[in-house]
Amino acid sequence: MQGRTAGNSFTVMNELVLPNDTNSFGNLMGGRLMYWMDIAAALAAMKHSNTPSMTASVDNISFKNPIKLGNIVHIEAKVTRSFNTSMEIHLKVWGEDSVHQYQYESNEAYFTFVALDPNGKPRPVPPIIPETEEEIKLYEGALRRRQLRLILAGKMKPDDANELKALFNK
Amino acid sequence: MQGRTAGNSFTVMNELVLPNDTNSFGNLMGGRLMYWMDIAAALAAMKHSNTPSMTASVDNISFKNPIKLGNIVHIEAKVTRSFNTSMEIHLKVWGEDSVHQYQYESNEAYFTFVALDPNGKPRPVPPIIPETEEEIKLYEGALRRRQLRLILAGKMKPDDANELKALFNK
Amino acid sequence: MQGRTAGNSFTVMNELVLPNDTNSFGNLMGGRLMYWMDIAAALAAMKHSNTPSMTASVDNISFKNPIKLGNIVHIEAKVTRSFNTSMEIHLKVWGEDSVHQYQYESNEAYFTFVALDPNGKPRPVPPIIPETEEEIKLYEGALRRRQLRLILAGKMKPDDANELKALFNK
Amino acid sequence: MQGRTAGNSFTVMNELVLPNDTNSFGNLMGGRLMYWMDIAAALAAMKHSNTPSMTASVDNISFKNPIKLGNIVHIEAKVTRSFNTSMEIHLKVWGEDSVHQYQYESNEAYFTFVALDPNGKPRPVPPIIPETEEEIKLYEGALRRRQLRLILAGKMKPDDANELKALFNK
Amino acid sequence: MQGRTAGNSFTVMNELVLPNDTNSFGNLMGGRLMYWMDIAAALAAMKHSNTPSMTASVDNISFKNPIKLGNIVHIEAKVTRSFNTSMEIHLKVWGEDSVHQYQYESNEAYFTFVALDPNGKPRPVPPIIPETEEEIKLYEGALRRRQLRLILAGKMKPDDANELKALFNK
Amino acid sequence: MQGRTAGNSFTVMNELVLPNDTNSFGNLMGGRLMYWMDIAAALAAMKHSNTPSMTASVDNISFKNPIKLGNIVHIEAKVTRSFNTSMEIHLKVWGEDSVHQYQYESNEAYFTFVALDPNGKPRPVPPIIPETEEEIKLYEGALRRRQLRLILAGKMKPDDANELKALFNK
Repeated sequence: MQGRTAGNSFTVMNELVLPNDTNSFGNLMGGRLMYWMDIAAALAAMKHSNTPSMTASVDNISFKNPIKLGNIVHIEAKVTRSFNTSMEIHLKVWGEDSVHQYQYESNEAYFTFVALDPNGKPRPVPPIIPETEEEIKLYEGALRRRQLRLILAGKMKPDDANELKALFNK
Repeated sequence: MQGRTAGNSFTVMNELVLPNDTNSFGNLMGGRLMYWMDIAAALAAMKHSNTPSMTASVDNISFKNPIKLGNIVHIEAKVTRSFNTSMEIHLKVWGEDSVHQYQYESNEAYFTFVALDPNGKPRPVPPIIPETEEEIKLYEGALRRRQLRLILAGKMKPDDANELKALFNK
Repeated sequence: MQGRTAGNSFTVMNELVLPNDTNSFGNLMGGRLMYWMDIAAALAAMKHSNTPSMTASVDNISFKNPIKLGNIVHIEAKVTRSFNTSMEIHLKVWGEDSVHQYQYESNEAYFTFVALDPNGKPRPVPPIIPETEEEIKLYEGALRRRQLRLILAGKMKPDDANELKALFNK
Repeated sequence: MQGRTAGNSFTVMNELVLPNDTNSFGNLMGGRLMYWMDIAAALAAMKHSNTPSMTASVDNISFKNPIKLGNIVHIEAKVTRSFNTSMEIHLKVWGEDSVHQYQYESNEAYFTFVALDPNGKPRPVPPIIPETEEEIKLYEGALRRRQLRLILAGKMKPDDANELKALFNK
Repeated sequence: MQGRTAGNSFTVMNELVLPNDTNSFGNLMGGRLMYWMDIAAALAAMKHSNTPSMTASVDNISFKNPIKLGNIVHIEAKVTRSFNTSMEIHLKVWGEDSVHQYQYESNEAYFTFVALDPNGKPRPVPPIIPETEEEIKLYEGALRRRQLRLILAGKMKPDDANELKALFNK
Repeated sequence: MQGRTAGNSFTVMNELVLPNDTNSFGNLMGGRLMYWMDIAAALAAMKHSNTPSMTASVDNISFKNPIKLGNIVHIEAKVTRSFNTSMEIHLKVWGEDSVHQYQYESNEAYFTFVALDPNGKPRPVPPIIPETEEEIKLYEGALRRRQLRLILAGKMKPDDANELKALFNK
């Protein structure tokens, strides 16, 4: 299967925060934001794999700044690496207050999607060809994140995660 | 500040999967599920803290089985432990096919919420009093999960996470 | 057809009142509440009958206290009795203001659902086995409510409604 | 307070049944229909009272024919009578299959709304002046429906409901 | 194919402006209004053609007055003329502030819909029989608007639009 | 007031077509698409003017190809020119079928937005500095489109529209 560049999957979403998206402080609710992020990640996964794809897992997300009512949500999504039938997608999310002209970070996240054949069974996806420096760094870190994911899902023992162990056991 | 039992925060949600919640395979989209989970977690956090609360972080979620169109989504949420102004909420999610009378696991997740005062600043929340065996186990594991969260958010060095290091460095 | 306990159908829903659910006084609109109640009743009917079910009628509902923006809506639904192909579902709805820690009654209601076979035709449902004192009382009152329903729908003459007549003709 | 004609409050709504409004048989869900009916009733109440108004109660509704996906929902609402601070609204609902050019009855219903002053307290509404034969019949039946409503809400004893007793005690 | 009167397609919609329909000034967003207008036009087109129909084009719309949160949106739609497989629909939209009892114009618009056969291919629609003075005027103006539409879509040269040229070339 | 480049306002939206966005042929409804286009245009207007802005008018839109369920909607918006307190925004919309890897044009459109001060009154916006060849062409055509808009809104006589007359009166 021929590889495709990471850039080929690049997807941008911009959304306006409306009243029903906010809590009583006028801040975008985390669940509404994750709903948008999931769609952005799905679009990136579909662009890379040319098949319908389904969310398999979501890595730890830490929300840095609340996004306010009436502000803009920017989401950028790009596939970092593929693992046989699954793809890791990297997302960057920030808010923009157009009136005061400043942008603020919301979060960075990793979603994993599985590509499906017409019967809903997993099917292989093309390898990723990272090109920019950032894409290469994300590509290389993908193995370590995958080990952590497998440990947290109970599918790998910490002792077998060599890449991760190095972090704790110097 | 007087402690409150974990059971006091227990919250149940049941939702019906409608057409717009599904992808082209008739499976509930991950983002729509996380939207509901975020609200269930917010309700549990509000019951424990008696203040409006905001999503601070979401731990790794691994989706085990897709939930089908027309099936029921069950979500149970309970606060496991509080850390000064934040609370960890544990969620269990499963699907139910009423027609064929079987239930299937979707995922388990941990959300962290911050309690806010009327000015939107973090405010202290009561400690949790775990009672059942499961509540005690979740309470004790909360420290380790918090260390992992801080490392992943770049706020703690792996070397300082003693609870976590023990897992990798035996 | 073997009976099933009322408790088996018990369904709980918790929803957060968001801006778009409210009128200009910040109170939950009646129609939005009935939308949630209908889904809770459908879930209870599906759990009892193990078939898709459709709303046949809704009894008189009287809304006691408005539920406020940002408060929690609690809905409990349980099948009280079945009548060949239909089921009566009893709902209790109340609001919860988590910040001020008090709960207030919204309404009690009875919905009737019809079970459908794969061709969309009514099909028999199992009888209900009431167990608790409240379930027995609801089971017994179901006949009287059914007579009122039939009279109001023009399908029964007041003179033939013996259970109801007793109320007016002592 | 000067009376206003029933016709003045007349409100028409037409809605298209979309996928998310339907159950697994492609029929409009009862709760979604009641959501639209509540808004139609609110518009009629606002036109009559010139104040924001809130749903106080909904009388027994019996759904005759399911409305199908892609069909049109017609709702007509008109105030029948006012009782100091409340108004009874009569609704007629039917479905239309434009392709096959036939219309079918869904239900008739009565909603009661309360008019509110700027502090959210009930305020008097103008009397209704019924003009057509149907309006006069609805106006006269309103007292009997109100007695039934009060009995069902536990606010009146069956013995005191003279209009209703006559139906059962001939 | 036998003609049908314009009046036969007449469709009325009334909608309540809810929080999520508004921008930060509490005014109905243009896009939300066009969503409702498109559905009203679709209903009129379906009534005239008795087939599912699809939006082909929308003429210039100029929004005169913003419609406020909590106000009522009135939409009236009527087919003005048909052109083989397409229909022009005329819409009038205004807002109503029930509390202050005044109505204000929002806009007038023309939508064009194409009737589709079961395979999704265009199919002929009946001619329109205009009856009232306004319907006749709209019927006659439809040719000129169609020329402008074709020019703007690049399907006709300004020189060939005789009806339009007369306006500029006196 | 200092000018700002057209590129500064450039906004991209990507949306997934879900079941509730489609008609009975599985095609995206025109109204739903215009809802998204209006938000994309609002974001571009806000980026240029740094003030909340409101839809003033929408020029003729002709929908070329239906966008299918499950496909991606791409919207690009950019301010072309400003006229004292208003801005013209140019939109390009196309669909993408990721599975079959082809993109198809939906439409091009022009929206006009008005910038508002905190009291909801129109306020001046910076001039546009067009840079690319396409931006310059759009900037120059904006005057002619504005004349057509004013004529269609009844605010200018065809005789006074010199730029437009040239098209018809050679």
